[in-house]
Amino acid sequence: MRSFGLFLLALTLSAAHADEGMWQPHQLPKISEQLQAAGLEINPESMQRLDQFPMNAIISLGGCTASFVSPEGLIVTNHHCVYGSIAYNSTPEQNLLQDGFVAADKSKEIQASPGTRVYVTEEVTEVTDTVLDVANGAQQGEAYYQAIEQNKKRLVAACESSQDYRCEVYTFHGGASYFLIRYLAIRDVRLVYAPPSSIGKFGGDTDNWMWPRHTGDWGFYRAYVGADGLPADYDPANQPYTPAAHFSVNKEGLAEDDFVMVLGYPGRTNRYRTALEVQNQFEWAYPTAKQYREDYIEVIKSVAAAGSEARLKYENTIAGLANYAKNYGSMITSYRKGSLLQDKQTLERNVLAWIESDETRRQRFGMAYTHLEHLLTEELQHQERDLLLAYMGRTNLWSVATRLLKLAHEREKPDLERDSGYQERDMARFAQGLQSLDRRYDADVDVAVLLHFFSLYQGLPAAERVGELDEFFGLNDRQDLGALQTKLQSMHARTDLDEAAVRLQWMEASLAEFESSNDPYIQFARALWSYNHQIEQKNKALAGELLKARPLWMQAILAYKESVGEPVYADANSSLRITYGTVTGYSPQDGLIAVPFTTAEGMLAKYVPGDDEFDLPEPLRRAIAARDYYEYSDRTLGSIAINYLTTVDITGGNSGSPTLNSRAEFVGLAFDSVYESVIGDWSYDPNMNRTIHVSSPYMLWTMKYIDGAAHLLDEMTLVNNPE
Amino acid sequence: MRSFGLFLLALTLSAAHADEGMWQPHQLPKISEQLQAAGLEINPESMQRLDQFPMNAIISLGGCTASFVSPEGLIVTNHHCVYGSIAYNSTPEQNLLQDGFVAADKSKEIQASPGTRVYVTEEVTEVTDTVLDVANGAQQGEAYYQAIEQNKKRLVAACESSQDYRCEVYTFHGGASYFLIRYLAIRDVRLVYAPPSSIGKFGGDTDNWMWPRHTGDWGFYRAYVGADGLPADYDPANQPYTPAAHFSVNKEGLAEDDFVMVLGYPGRTNRYRTALEVQNQFEWAYPTAKQYREDYIEVIKSVAAAGSEARLKYENTIAGLANYAKNYGSMITSYRKGSLLQDKQTLERNVLAWIESDETRRQRFGMAYTHLEHLLTEELQHQERDLLLAYMGRTNLWSVATRLLKLAHEREKPDLERDSGYQERDMARFAQGLQSLDRRYDADVDVAVLLHFFSLYQGLPAAERVGELDEFFGLNDRQDLGALQTKLQSMHARTDLDEAAVRLQWMEASLAEFESSNDPYIQFARALWSYNHQIEQKNKALAGELLKARPLWMQAILAYKESVGEPVYADANSSLRITYGTVTGYSPQDGLIAVPFTTAEGMLAKYVPGDDEFDLPEPLRRAIAARDYYEYSDRTLGSIAINYLTTVDITGGNSGSPTLNSRAEFVGLAFDSVYESVIGDWSYDPNMNRTIHVSSPYMLWTMKYIDGAAHLLDEMTLVNNPE
Repeated sequence: MRSFGLFLLALTLSAAHADEGMWQPHQLPKISEQLQAAGLEINPESMQRLDQFPMNAIISLGGCTASFVSPEGLIVTNHHCVYGSIAYNSTPEQNLLQDGFVAADKSKEIQASPGTRVYVTEEVTEVTDTVLDVANGAQQGEAYYQAIEQNKKRLVAACESSQDYRCEVYTFHGGASYFLIRYLAIRDVRLVYAPPSSIGKFGGDTDNWMWPRHTGDWGFYRAYVGADGLPADYDPANQPYTPAAHFSVNKEGLAEDDFVMVLGYPGRTNRYRTALEVQNQFEWAYPTAKQYREDYIEVIKSVAAAGSEARLKYENTIAGLANYAKNYGSMITSYRKGSLLQDKQTLERNVLAWIESDETRRQRFGMAYTHLEHLLTEELQHQERDLLLAYMGRTNLWSVATRLLKLAHEREKPDLERDSGYQERDMARFAQGLQSLDRRYDADVDVAVLLHFFSLYQGLPAAERVGELDEFFGLNDRQDLGALQTKLQSMHARTDLDEAAVRLQWMEASLAEFESSNDPYIQFARALWSYNHQIEQKNKALAGELLKARPLWMQAILAYKESVGEPVYADANSSLRITYGTVTGYSPQDGLIAVPFTTAEGMLAKYVPGDDEFDLPEPLRRAIAARDYYEYSDRTLGSIAINYLTTVDITGGNSGSPTLNSRAEFVGLAFDSVYESVIGDWSYDPNMNRTIHVSSPYMLWTMKYIDGAAHLLDEMTLVNNPE
Repeated sequence: MRSFGLFLLALTLSAAHADEGMWQPHQLPKISEQLQAAGLEINPESMQRLDQFPMNAIISLGGCTASFVSPEGLIVTNHHCVYGSIAYNSTPEQNLLQDGFVAADKSKEIQASPGTRVYVTEEVTEVTDTVLDVANGAQQGEAYYQAIEQNKKRLVAACESSQDYRCEVYTFHGGASYFLIRYLAIRDVRLVYAPPSSIGKFGGDTDNWMWPRHTGDWGFYRAYVGADGLPADYDPANQPYTPAAHFSVNKEGLAEDDFVMVLGYPGRTNRYRTALEVQNQFEWAYPTAKQYREDYIEVIKSVAAAGSEARLKYENTIAGLANYAKNYGSMITSYRKGSLLQDKQTLERNVLAWIESDETRRQRFGMAYTHLEHLLTEELQHQERDLLLAYMGRTNLWSVATRLLKLAHEREKPDLERDSGYQERDMARFAQGLQSLDRRYDADVDVAVLLHFFSLYQGLPAAERVGELDEFFGLNDRQDLGALQTKLQSMHARTDLDEAAVRLQWMEASLAEFESSNDPYIQFARALWSYNHQIEQKNKALAGELLKARPLWMQAILAYKESVGEPVYADANSSLRITYGTVTGYSPQDGLIAVPFTTAEGMLAKYVPGDDEFDLPEPLRRAIAARDYYEYSDRTLGSIAINYLTTVDITGGNSGSPTLNSRAEFVGLAFDSVYESVIGDWSYDPNMNRTIHVSSPYMLWTMKYIDGAAHLLDEMTLVNNPE
């Protein structure tokens, strides 16, 4: 047998040139040589143009990425990205989540959940000058912030010529540049096919962020438009949208060391934060938030017994809390083991020395770092109080009442001057949020959660206490949670905000109506208003200063990096990016190697009959036991490749992104990262950063031989690898 | 980069000829060709003789294995095998467990914990005929059992000519053959060196049964004898024992695929149990016992808060309960994934068909299987009640009172007729057990544990209830745990058995004194006596029948296996065995490969400052950070090999066994198995069965450069690999 020790060494060496970076399409000229050296076979130039293949086959779902895979508007994305639509169409009698869903033909396709949109990126325009063009008097603090915000809103308003378009201004490098992106917004979106959860969510929370992985995380939508080819409201007479391009689907998938590329909309990374921010985040914020989340879950569980109606309402909340508690745990561990802080400190020392060594640079950037650090220190000054209040604000009625009162205030202003989230364009989503609250609210649970956080609040130093809060709840230095509990219970008993219709009515209410209301939660929101407003003003003022300070420091870093010949990509900000890499395993820890493919037999070995997370459909199990893999069997593996690992650099928002091979053929979907690379949002480690994908052969095999969705293969362009 | 997928395949193929078997020395002629083919370089014939090298360098510690590594009686074994002696010599002021211990010279070596013995195997005699020679009237049930027991005791008594010797009769194949083994019992044993727990127990319970592993599980004793060279009580004037042989210690250790051999005293395996026993064990007994253990721990924790004095007393109990709950969990998982039951059923079908196909075989073995199955079914009839009572019997005073009363009864009989454990030769250990109870007993905890198991007992069907128990505690069908709790608390408050001196006095008490005692726990033992006695008689009768039935069926299996050319080894029974294999990794699950070596850097990556389990001594960390490995650096790994994996077939009792290379040089110590091979006691899977060893280079490096024990290297015979 061969030496595993040597493999490990080989891995480390190879990983050293794995490719970090989430590149904007316009940056492609800078990295086209790298891309071709890595194995890209198509012309990299073609990827600069959003109206050309492959970029014009990429879609945003707002939070997830997707892509066209047929000329008839068929869209593939992750199961967890279409999950809301499956859940929305599920009933106790027809449990689509459990059983999966296949529309036998187009007429059987069902409406996606309300608000589902398909966003096709049509135009990207750099608007830095327009955004930064502010009047003389508006160059400080809140005024600067508001001026920038209004410039962005004006650009968006002008761009959103009709409801067929949605526009966004994206901030790059903390404010150094701005881009306006216009999307075609298709609003008749239908669910075509989703596997049963025992395939689509196989492994559940246990396997979340974990390798080895065997999740069939895919689902299909179709985009429909009116007879004129433009977006339209749902109408049975609408026609499938004809995309400008679609991806061919490769039947054979990938082999180890193959080139891969992922196109998508990564949400947010923090790769350029300062050492001060990094240290605070990993040594205070994540550990504290992890504890708060674990406490929050404990409190829910202690009040809502497993299986109770209340517990069912909070399962999603618990999953969300647990998910990020685990996420933070991974990051804290990686931080402790790694050198993120030291790397930041070294970079900052180098940049400062580089600035110091040149008079022009000294003049331009001399105070950039000190000024930024000063603002950041100010930002963190009350973080303990702020984090506590933020977790209290996660309870349902606290949040609803506060947001409704803010809406009434914002509605006094012209639309363009309102805070984002409170403009007319946001109202449909706002209403949906209010409506769905019933499904996740139980008074006893929210009261218990509030009590828990109040008990922590009582421990804050006197200077950090919020007078308005103390006064409203009659709090003082002594711990008297009994009285507080009575007060909260009474509020929850008397409020009408637990009725959806009432909540929706308050969306239209005037400030005067808020003033005269006897609803205890409306009164609460009123009592907190001045405090909240004052904090918002302060935050905006600080944000305004940061919008100048951070870009200046970023420009110093960019100039420094350019001086040492390192191309720089911007932090993720939900705009379209390209990342590439190779199929390869890694060593999660000394003594272990994660190999880059999992197999069908490995999936069957995880099967636990009737388990929430590890059940598998009987036809799938039978086919694997019989090794009925047909044309989808992988010769190297002697099985079907289920999931695979690559070095591509992604984050949340990339979910559902097509994975493409060197010929830009679809070879699967990115859907997760391994546990050791959760810290990737802060720093990319070539030895540990691995993305998990579901393979195209597994998808096609399941559709054709297990789930009865063979007809969808007929409308795809299926291809094999060249001989 | 190379393909990990292919490595996986290679691994599977290679593992298929890894070697199962715990061989008796006298079986070596049968496997000497295999051994040489596998890579053994010394003459296999030499290993048949207990008085020749290497067998004469192997020692039993009674529960652990050890070996001589110097001509001056220096003994190496696992840290966890000398743990009791380190703990015994530790004080709050001088915490040897935490700090480790190195005797600067022989005069500084300290006494091992009371009862520590070094057993050197001197003679093995087959005694099957003598043991099975029973009088005509004693051929059934209990009489047969007692006759066999007495034959064994007579052999032992004759063999134990002085306190310098200990003898045991070992049962092979469930009673098909018997061997008498005579050990020289050295009783002046001294602690020479043990690393700090942060090396010797590194990884703690978290890493127990786990790979990757980085535990420095070693410790050193020295055997001392009187001026006459014979065993003697401790005396500063005693001299180091001169062993007939000792192992050379290899400084370079092993490489992947190297031959290894482990000599030792494996405790117990169940590889020849029937399908009925296997199914019951894995589908009822292990799952139930796992639950009982988890409950037991929960109850202890709920009564004894973390850090309390009571909790400290129960930490060992908790660790023991948790250890086997985890063990059972692994076995249940492996059983569900594997084919153990089907394999058993197939073997039984084959053997039965083979018997059926021949008249002579039919006559000899025709009823063997049916008869055995009948007895086994009878044995399992009351298992739920029996298991519950067994867990109640784990509480301290219940156990002590019951055993003391039984001792009084046994002491009425001549020594040879007493049950084993109650003979004169057992009394020193008996007294030690009584004495040490104070360190692990708290009344509130034991009462709570009893209450918990009583609540389960109350759920038994009426027919399974124990009249004597119900009567003593006033139990009836209704759950009235309140009254029971009062009764138990009162018993624990009034008993004097919580005083060590009182317990020791009861060892000498007559039955009449038991009859007249007012001690509530003595009264309890008296009340249960008739029930316990009757169950014992029943069990002995059944054991007697099984002592005939099981060997007959085993002989059928042996004859069948011989007919198909398979050499057969007997189940482990604490007698000396040889197992061999190779250094190799494995795939714990689809998508992951465990490589066969861990490294010093990997250990440092696990370091958590001040953690109970993952702390590391500062000099060790400093040396690793500086890569100060000197002559112990492994060229392939570019580091020091800490732990490694092999395919050797071991079980509990093998702890501390020397691992030998092809030249019978010491290359480390076996100390654990991986989680996936815990089921190995029931079946050996060449793909999953891996033993974990600590490497000789890591031991020597630590002794020389970290722990200040370089002088011990001076008395060893250190060797390198041939050029």
